[in-house]
Amino acid sequence: MVVKRRNRLLSIESICDAALVCIDESGRLTMAELAARLGASPSSVYHHLPGRGAIIEALRERVGATIDSPAVDDPDWMGAISGWMRAYRQAMAAHPNLIPLLIAQPMTSEAGLRSYDRVAGLLAGAGVADADIVPWITALDSFALGSALDLTAPDQPWVVADRADLPALGAAVTAGPAGRRRADTAFELGLAALLAGMSGSAAG
Amino acid sequence: MVVKRRNRLLSIESICDAALVCIDESGRLTMAELAARLGASPSSVYHHLPGRGAIIEALRERVGATIDSPAVDDPDWMGAISGWMRAYRQAMAAHPNLIPLLIAQPMTSEAGLRSYDRVAGLLAGAGVADADIVPWITALDSFALGSALDLTAPDQPWVVADRADLPALGAAVTAGPAGRRRADTAFELGLAALLAGMSGSAAG
Repeated sequence: MVVKRRNRLLSIESICDAALVCIDESGRLTMAELAARLGASPSSVYHHLPGRGAIIEALRERVGATIDSPAVDDPDWMGAISGWMRAYRQAMAAHPNLIPLLIAQPMTSEAGLRSYDRVAGLLAGAGVADADIVPWITALDSFALGSALDLTAPDQPWVVADRADLPALGAAVTAGPAGRRRADTAFELGLAALLAGMSGSAAG
Repeated sequence: MVVKRRNRLLSIESICDAALVCIDESGRLTMAELAARLGASPSSVYHHLPGRGAIIEALRERVGATIDSPAVDDPDWMGAISGWMRAYRQAMAAHPNLIPLLIAQPMTSEAGLRSYDRVAGLLAGAGVADADIVPWITALDSFALGSALDLTAPDQPWVVADRADLPALGAAVTAGPAGRRRADTAFELGLAALLAGMSGSAAG
């Protein structure tokens, strides 16, 4: 959807709308393509947001707005982290092409930082050692983002029909869930394992 | 690097070379861009590989060639899976833009399928129930791919300097590892947790 009208009034909102369409459609964001889509010059885009990084950070804020930050005083820290992880995966699954762009730059989004501050506070409260908190948050992040990308996988990721030479994979595919249930079961199994690992690390 | 000579002899090898450069540089693969880079017509590319999906599958085979398949009779199944996961993450980290393209289509690559057949065989041998094998393999996949993308993250993913209002995240960033050590520690922690989860599932 290219906006045809030239010199239309730009806003942070309209720039973010167009940038997200660029990324969803093409998997990338260039200022030239964004400006063309907006029917504006790159310099008029820069007037509102000082560059590509700022636009991606604004998209982090927008996509993250659907994720409730965990309550830092939640006595059920595992439940709080689980809820955050489920919402995080779901939000990112709606814009999988945005994932590599978010990973590649430092987080400055205020809502994002506050959310991670709460996750860090929950892990500290659970007894995870300070030095282990960033690695555990990173592991959670990698799993949530990998699982969000997995939601773009085909219903059956492995083509094994009539393949007697792949007996173990064939049996597993036949016995296991497919489609969305495959993805959801995997996410819950992995999440439970990571939580158990964090809990063990806290107790150790 | 655009090959200037027109009508040069195409081969599966040269098409894959050019496709990987397209993906590494732009994050996407279109037949038009690939043909332009090769100085060839799309139809002459199709003559060697029957479409975009076949090219991506050939790249799965090529990038996967650096990953040793785990030995299905390895008595140390956790060690075998760990070695495979480390090589898998490392191989994909060299071509992070390829990750979403690989996830989005069914695997037909022979080497890829054989490798997953061995992983499935190891999990079955360890006692994981047939119905749980595909979900666990999916969880491993999501974690390996998310962790490969994490290797593209900046040295310090959170900007928290002088942020007294982010006390928990600030303390965690100060106490925790940064850069490659952050990523590697996270990967090993998460991998150990997933292996422990699989082991518990096998015993249960």
